[in-house]
Amino acid sequence: MEPRLITQLLDQYLQRQSASVKLRIRVYLALRSAILDGELPAGTKLPPTRVLAEDLAIGRNTGVHAYEQLTAEGYIEARVGDGSYVSDAVTRRPKHEAPKRLLGARREGLSRRGGSIANNAGSSIAQRGAFTPGVPDVELFPFHIWRRLVGKYLDVSHAHLLQYAHAGYGPLKVTLANYLRVTRMMPVDPKQVIIINGSHQALDLCARMLADHGDRAWIEDPGYWGARNVLTAAGLQLTPIPLDDKGMAPTPEDWAKPPRLVFVSPSSQYPTGTVLTLERRLELLEQADQAGAWIIEDDYDNELHFSDRPLASLFGLASRQRVIYMGTLSKVMFPGIRLAYLVVPTDLVDAFTIGNAELYRGGRLAEQAALAEFIEEGHFTAHIKRMRGIYGERREVLLDAMQRHLGDTVTTTAGHAGLQLVYRFQQPVDDTMVVAQSLAEGVVCRPLSMYYLDQARRQPGLNLGFAAVPTERIGPAARTLATVIERELQRR
Amino acid sequence: MEPRLITQLLDQYLQRQSASVKLRIRVYLALRSAILDGELPAGTKLPPTRVLAEDLAIGRNTGVHAYEQLTAEGYIEARVGDGSYVSDAVTRRPKHEAPKRLLGARREGLSRRGGSIANNAGSSIAQRGAFTPGVPDVELFPFHIWRRLVGKYLDVSHAHLLQYAHAGYGPLKVTLANYLRVTRMMPVDPKQVIIINGSHQALDLCARMLADHGDRAWIEDPGYWGARNVLTAAGLQLTPIPLDDKGMAPTPEDWAKPPRLVFVSPSSQYPTGTVLTLERRLELLEQADQAGAWIIEDDYDNELHFSDRPLASLFGLASRQRVIYMGTLSKVMFPGIRLAYLVVPTDLVDAFTIGNAELYRGGRLAEQAALAEFIEEGHFTAHIKRMRGIYGERREVLLDAMQRHLGDTVTTTAGHAGLQLVYRFQQPVDDTMVVAQSLAEGVVCRPLSMYYLDQARRQPGLNLGFAAVPTERIGPAARTLATVIERELQRR
Repeated sequence: MEPRLITQLLDQYLQRQSASVKLRIRVYLALRSAILDGELPAGTKLPPTRVLAEDLAIGRNTGVHAYEQLTAEGYIEARVGDGSYVSDAVTRRPKHEAPKRLLGARREGLSRRGGSIANNAGSSIAQRGAFTPGVPDVELFPFHIWRRLVGKYLDVSHAHLLQYAHAGYGPLKVTLANYLRVTRMMPVDPKQVIIINGSHQALDLCARMLADHGDRAWIEDPGYWGARNVLTAAGLQLTPIPLDDKGMAPTPEDWAKPPRLVFVSPSSQYPTGTVLTLERRLELLEQADQAGAWIIEDDYDNELHFSDRPLASLFGLASRQRVIYMGTLSKVMFPGIRLAYLVVPTDLVDAFTIGNAELYRGGRLAEQAALAEFIEEGHFTAHIKRMRGIYGERREVLLDAMQRHLGDTVTTTAGHAGLQLVYRFQQPVDDTMVVAQSLAEGVVCRPLSMYYLDQARRQPGLNLGFAAVPTERIGPAARTLATVIERELQRR
Repeated sequence: MEPRLITQLLDQYLQRQSASVKLRIRVYLALRSAILDGELPAGTKLPPTRVLAEDLAIGRNTGVHAYEQLTAEGYIEARVGDGSYVSDAVTRRPKHEAPKRLLGARREGLSRRGGSIANNAGSSIAQRGAFTPGVPDVELFPFHIWRRLVGKYLDVSHAHLLQYAHAGYGPLKVTLANYLRVTRMMPVDPKQVIIINGSHQALDLCARMLADHGDRAWIEDPGYWGARNVLTAAGLQLTPIPLDDKGMAPTPEDWAKPPRLVFVSPSSQYPTGTVLTLERRLELLEQADQAGAWIIEDDYDNELHFSDRPLASLFGLASRQRVIYMGTLSKVMFPGIRLAYLVVPTDLVDAFTIGNAELYRGGRLAEQAALAEFIEEGHFTAHIKRMRGIYGERREVLLDAMQRHLGDTVTTTAGHAGLQLVYRFQQPVDDTMVVAQSLAEGVVCRPLSMYYLDQARRQPGLNLGFAAVPTERIGPAARTLATVIERELQRR
């Protein structure tokens, strides 16, 4: 514990004592109580009496006296040439009586929606290794460049970048607008770009600005687990829309009960990698327009495409302002950066800017300035290009290994982009059992069944991330996984 | 525009062309279209043909041919020893036909709650100068220390700090728990500390985990504007509870319709600075316990106390687990850091940890590690101590200047902590008019009336921030403000 915290603690103890007691006794008692209460555990180095005198506004001798008395009584030990320490001889006691427990069970006291959020959690503790899906290889990030740029803006000459922000860092908006115009064929004016602290907040902002409690939202089924919880927590009723090989496939009956929001990942469906066909895209835009629905386009990993060229965005295709585009820097920079962006129709710019400031308050302009420069200097595209090569190789190694070890037992849709591959089983398998067993052998993966909202539609499979695992470990991990799968198949 | 973005753009153009056309013609057409579309405006430096060849997987001569042709036709200019540039001679055209406007008015298409958020916005654009309330002086932040610590953790040896996070950085929780135990007399176990991206998210998390749509929440009136919008956006019905000089003063009739949540700033009410008395605190805890209500204690600026010692927290006083404590680093570090924390009762730790990850996803561990070290090394308390001295001085200067210029025209409650002072008028004044006029003369302040939810209860006054303005400018700004006030008083 650092000296000033100790003197603050002693100050608190001193305040509790009667002023009628002599000061040097009060200082002694404060120290003794703090030690007996366990606030200053055995081995704690006490502040020099000079600091004590200064911080408590007492005479130096008062402190010296208290220390001497406590040393004599065995509470503290003086070490020659070093200082005074709380003695080991003092039995350590519980610091405080624990407050009485109000709640019986863990989740009592939560609201219904709070309980629902907690019970339907999808986020995973694993962040690395074969085959954690959805995460990039952070070890290959160009740290030295990023450190330089972040450091540059953490300077008194850029002090204003430490303040609250409302609309994100202007030059970053310009840079992202240029980037989207070129890579995603999107007609974007910089002011349409809303910088936000991550995709979950971005989706939450859309849900709350555009939909009311009880409104209907469509999600892909299977689909991104995170969207389910965010939309439900915003009070929306979810309708899971099944996929076929052309992507999200709503029926006329679905359109008869039109949604307020459609959450869709057209360029590389999560987790299957399916691409929404042009025909489907045009139909979706047309129907949404008629129904007055808003489309939220989740374009989470389109930078990391392999065999094919990236597809144009749905946003860029829309002739009417019906689409809100959602991009993230989690996959191409690193997940912990917590920066994502929305591109919203011109008419929504003001309301979304205000909503972002009101619901989350902005800030973090220094990082946004660093990011803008990172992109402008070309490090962003260089890093993407490099990682595309590395991930492409890892993807091939995984495809080969799975083919070699499991042959026709599993099939993959092998989407053209992303950080993971979905494999489906050709026979009935309990995929959660496979996942649990492979985890026991050190291989992380996620059951495809967990991505379905409609239980009747669930198909067993595995979502395997190949990005955050060194290439040479992919083969051995796939072999382990194959053994687990074969054991599970034989068991049935 | 950097070369790689240009080649990506050309790639997009190439894809739109028929493969039956010769490649060198296609490259020529792609470049020409990009220039005519305005995607490559006059003066843009084109990539060297070597880069073109590499990125588009074309022969180098193909690029050379296209460039020569375009140069001949006046689209581009070759500058000796430099490269090729898009010619000024090409008329710049609009890049894209603007999408048809779907929405007539700006806020059409929003949900009811979205419209409400946008229409009830309280956040301000001003972030600095006399007398912006609620903001610290970021220019005095110890940049060199912070830069060093942030840089230390942005390193490949700490690559895991770039990943998604679930529960915040462990050592930061330990450090904050120690800090709260000592400075706020709070019995806190580190696991009770939830690190979150700012106070608004922290309050939103409480609202959604603990209350359902339609539940009642109490807020202080006047009170923090931000809480109103966050709680309303979470579907809560707000009941404004008036203040007296002992703080929030609910009546027995209020308790007859008990709330689910009580949002209160007991140690230094925002904006008035009133302290909730011990008697009121005990009554609030007792009644909340009987009613099954949760208390959210907003302890936003208690570090920055002046004449008195800081008061113990409500959380530390509670014998039963009824209080959720909310702390922020916006005032003592800097607003843009976007880090706040909750201390939740033991029984809520798991649910809040999950809720935080599901609703907002965690990350930013490198900054949290830097912050933990910043606190451990003593820079945190040192900075607070320094700023307390500076703000204390500025506060005195403001008090003096207002007394000198306005005498008994205004009175202040002069709270014992914080970054602002609230002045009330002794006669009827339109405070929004005063604010508008003083803004016109370069002095920012906020009308007290805007902090009231209950319009009938509104009292005119001004909230004046003294922290983010250099000491020597306080006097002149107060003089300007006094002139505006006197003019307004005479006008009536």
